[in-house]
Amino acid sequence: MSVPAPDHDVFAAGDVVLQCGLTLRDAKLAYKCHGTLNRERSNAIVFPTRYSGRHGDNEYLIGEGMALDPKKYFIIVPNLLGNGVSSSPSNTPPPFDRARFPNVTIHDNVMLQRRLLVEKFGVDRLALAIGWSMGAQQAYHWAALFPDRVERLAAIGGSARTSHHNFVFLEGVKAALTADAAWNGGWYEKPPTVGLRAMARVWAGWGLSQAFYRQELYKTMGYASVEDFLVGWWEGLFLQRDANNLLALIWTWQHGDISANGTYNGDFGKALGAIEAKALVMPGSTDLYFPPEDNEYEVARMKHATLRPIPSIWGHYAGGGRDKEAVKFMDDRLKELLAS
Amino acid sequence: MSVPAPDHDVFAAGDVVLQCGLTLRDAKLAYKCHGTLNRERSNAIVFPTRYSGRHGDNEYLIGEGMALDPKKYFIIVPNLLGNGVSSSPSNTPPPFDRARFPNVTIHDNVMLQRRLLVEKFGVDRLALAIGWSMGAQQAYHWAALFPDRVERLAAIGGSARTSHHNFVFLEGVKAALTADAAWNGGWYEKPPTVGLRAMARVWAGWGLSQAFYRQELYKTMGYASVEDFLVGWWEGLFLQRDANNLLALIWTWQHGDISANGTYNGDFGKALGAIEAKALVMPGSTDLYFPPEDNEYEVARMKHATLRPIPSIWGHYAGGGRDKEAVKFMDDRLKELLAS
Repeated sequence: MSVPAPDHDVFAAGDVVLQCGLTLRDAKLAYKCHGTLNRERSNAIVFPTRYSGRHGDNEYLIGEGMALDPKKYFIIVPNLLGNGVSSSPSNTPPPFDRARFPNVTIHDNVMLQRRLLVEKFGVDRLALAIGWSMGAQQAYHWAALFPDRVERLAAIGGSARTSHHNFVFLEGVKAALTADAAWNGGWYEKPPTVGLRAMARVWAGWGLSQAFYRQELYKTMGYASVEDFLVGWWEGLFLQRDANNLLALIWTWQHGDISANGTYNGDFGKALGAIEAKALVMPGSTDLYFPPEDNEYEVARMKHATLRPIPSIWGHYAGGGRDKEAVKFMDDRLKELLAS
Repeated sequence: MSVPAPDHDVFAAGDVVLQCGLTLRDAKLAYKCHGTLNRERSNAIVFPTRYSGRHGDNEYLIGEGMALDPKKYFIIVPNLLGNGVSSSPSNTPPPFDRARFPNVTIHDNVMLQRRLLVEKFGVDRLALAIGWSMGAQQAYHWAALFPDRVERLAAIGGSARTSHHNFVFLEGVKAALTADAAWNGGWYEKPPTVGLRAMARVWAGWGLSQAFYRQELYKTMGYASVEDFLVGWWEGLFLQRDANNLLALIWTWQHGDISANGTYNGDFGKALGAIEAKALVMPGSTDLYFPPEDNEYEVARMKHATLRPIPSIWGHYAGGGRDKEAVKFMDDRLKELLAS
């Protein structure tokens, strides 16, 4: 009988001072590895998680014969702080627990991931930084913060800086969740389920495109009607999550900006221009909150970047693995990128 | 000293049996007229209100020298049932008050408007049915329900049938409002302000385009920042409204469908094909909930329809009067339509 491999490992990072000035004490960065680091330590790929995603959720782009092939690459999937697996409001002891969990930036996440790679694996150089959605935000930060250490960048359905509109969309989902008095400023004992369900319903319109609903693609996912989809998929998804974790991650997302640090001091153009990685930027062609236009702006200011929108009516979820044709499209582009 | 003209008139329609089977007792249809009916009664235009709008809100498209010139046309602006001026949850006496206000369809509205025109003004024929947003839904219904009585149709930022995606967007704003326990199933004594503010924040992302926020056009409206805009404009707007009225109108909107009646029995294609009016369909080119694609489908199935998207980054609000170039664009197209 084979013993199942552990689901993930944890990097105990000790006390980490965050950009906000608070200390994340006994910080834990959970991660999963695929493949083996080669002798030259030249085959490492970092592939951080998306909003509320976990390490297992990235596996649609990892596999033998795919671009991210564990036979060739050493692929590390770090969990975002706040996602419930790494240090989060839901698993941090008092006094920094729950509503008192500190504000964490993408920068904080990436600096911690860098420590994991250097301290744990002796990896100082990445063949690729890749991610979808908030994962793309992290990949962008990797390329901007370590321009001479990241050879390639693949940003799928994400941006280097959260746009105003994207910020406003998140204000809406946040407002829906926190309108539930049971949320109680984050000091709930029972989950604020009314707010979680409301948040889910708001997200349902944003996550997928108008055409996705027009063509009733939710039926291909096993839902008989719009309402069946809203309850079965969306509410079901958010009910499994902790409200404070969801809010912590929204704060992180809203403040994503590769130039919001001492290196670039808010000069977004400078940060984009500093990226040396060969970059592949793949928005979903019908994404409503990370629309291709924001990436166009970025790509025009980067040295070696190509914009390749994913032709898909799955909206933001074009990059998320459920659209099989989109997965093929991404994988083909990633093969080209990794071969270059 | 001049005496101000009365702001609007009211058509007392008596007891009206609605599509849902309930009776709207002592129904009141509030309206405002501009201009004078000619002897032939051939110059009437109906221009119903939008979601939560009131008769005064349509005046950006009415004026001397404009297409809708009160010197030439007799323009009637009826208020939607549920908008707080016509019969609404907020002004209907028990037992059909507040949460018990019956579900009203666009069809119910238009049949009542038809009675106003015939019974009060002897108008049996329209030179034009026009509206923006929910106003466009009503205009579409006019053209489909009275194909031989509506000469022209102008549907701005609206659709003949509410799309699934549009329905889901509305589920989101509804969920945000009703997540506030103070809403109390509609039986609040004090307004559920947390829910109203949450609804406003959700709507803020939908109402305008990504590019509107990218280019910071809220600054042209007198708001210094995104947050200033969210509170000052959006929350301010919704705090002035009654929650039950807002929800009643969402029900009406969600169920908008020109074929949902005994004439067409759900055959949407047949209803579109029955429209005889010369039709001008003007979606906002960046509208997120009434996107041009839905109108393309409709125009392809209508006899005499032209699609003319309004070039604007004001999203849904392209048709709402704040984008002055869009007003000029619409007015020019309306002049062409009325001259034909």
